[in-house]
Amino acid sequence: MTDATSVMPESRRVREAIRAGEITGTSRGLALGHVQANLVIIRERHALDFVRYCQRNQRACPVLEITDTGDPEPRMSAPGADLRTDVARYAIYRDGIRQGDRTEIGALWRDDLVAFLIGSGISFDGALRAAGVQTERYRWVLRTDRPTVPAGPFHGPLSVTMRWLTAQETVTATQVTSRFPFNHGGPIHVGDPAGIGADLADPLFGGPVPDCPAGLIPVFWACGVTPQEAAIAGGLDLMIAHAPAHAFITDLEAADLQIA
Amino acid sequence: MTDATSVMPESRRVREAIRAGEITGTSRGLALGHVQANLVIIRERHALDFVRYCQRNQRACPVLEITDTGDPEPRMSAPGADLRTDVARYAIYRDGIRQGDRTEIGALWRDDLVAFLIGSGISFDGALRAAGVQTERYRWVLRTDRPTVPAGPFHGPLSVTMRWLTAQETVTATQVTSRFPFNHGGPIHVGDPAGIGADLADPLFGGPVPDCPAGLIPVFWACGVTPQEAAIAGGLDLMIAHAPAHAFITDLEAADLQIA
Repeated sequence: MTDATSVMPESRRVREAIRAGEITGTSRGLALGHVQANLVIIRERHALDFVRYCQRNQRACPVLEITDTGDPEPRMSAPGADLRTDVARYAIYRDGIRQGDRTEIGALWRDDLVAFLIGSGISFDGALRAAGVQTERYRWVLRTDRPTVPAGPFHGPLSVTMRWLTAQETVTATQVTSRFPFNHGGPIHVGDPAGIGADLADPLFGGPVPDCPAGLIPVFWACGVTPQEAAIAGGLDLMIAHAPAHAFITDLEAADLQIA
Repeated sequence: MTDATSVMPESRRVREAIRAGEITGTSRGLALGHVQANLVIIRERHALDFVRYCQRNQRACPVLEITDTGDPEPRMSAPGADLRTDVARYAIYRDGIRQGDRTEIGALWRDDLVAFLIGSGISFDGALRAAGVQTERYRWVLRTDRPTVPAGPFHGPLSVTMRWLTAQETVTATQVTSRFPFNHGGPIHVGDPAGIGADLADPLFGGPVPDCPAGLIPVFWACGVTPQEAAIAGGLDLMIAHAPAHAFITDLEAADLQIA
């Protein structure tokens, strides 16, 4: 972790620009090398069940931080940050229905809210690129027919990230991502999307899925939008998440999540 | 995971013998190859803070399972087991003070209790032995002067497992345990115990520490008794744990916790 008192890390500079309204778009490509996290904010009375859900489905739901109740500062992964202002676009769900997005949530904040930061596959894009794997061209987030293990109100299918890779990239990407066991780890499936019931017709992210070009192989990773989807399915009276592609940027370096 | 409906795993056979009072001693060496877990049972109102503590000190506190509130069955790691009877010896703490041990806790069970199973270094003994590392002769659990990150009432120093190994064993044990990132992972320190303030005078487990023989190197791993110690330090009105060396035996196989 970078010592914020000596040199301001790029992650903090970007968060401050987001807070000031100078950056309003996607977090993709920002503060490269820093861990980007999926955000889920819920009431304390649902937090223990949510933790159970994440623990029971650890591959999809690697918990990077749990804030103290009512505290909007993620003290472990981004000291000084404010989760009410430092995400460019928030998605607000009431009773499981998405309301209008917001660019800050100060007016919605309550003393009984708990924020969860959950690992995102974006975090190993840098390591994949360094190993020669293209990460942007063919990438979607899809629902599958694989059930997750429920906990309290949280339930639903596993969501996955699908990438189309060459044979060599498939091997390299498997090796590289296996070094991130705390951030989804290696692929959960390779090949026919039907093998995990991946829903190509209605991607959660990435636009329509065309036919897979000859010579490319679909490769699938457990995806950190799974717990958000489970919270939506649970119909909580209030759930605040980052809007897709507008993740929270931590001070953690991707290398910190990597094992030898 | 073994399918309990087809062949009864050794872990389940051992648990049933413990439940019947036929096995009353240490769990060391029982159901080899199965994951043994540290047990912490607390009231639901402390459970979210305890999860925060474990998440903030993940190396020492790998959570293998969190039961539903009031449910004594660990459905993920040992379906059919009963955490009120299937540990040979329980340690009972009231206001942080250890009371008399018990061989079952049926009379203490309450609808508001939550059980946590936490990874134990015992689980990689088999992998170490298979790699030619002796695991029993020189082994202690020690407190250190390294603080953990607190959460709610939970706080205190990091506890470690210390082993004395040859130079070759030190290399091999580092490689082998690094393949268990969800079960403490590789060593946190090698060499002088003073480097982490390890308290050689008062081991938590393993008897007095003699002088280290010439040619052997002290090697240290984060230890899963850390969260139990943090719960004791927190002075909870009620905390039930396994008594030292009487861990809960899950159906998980150690290989399930291992990555490539």
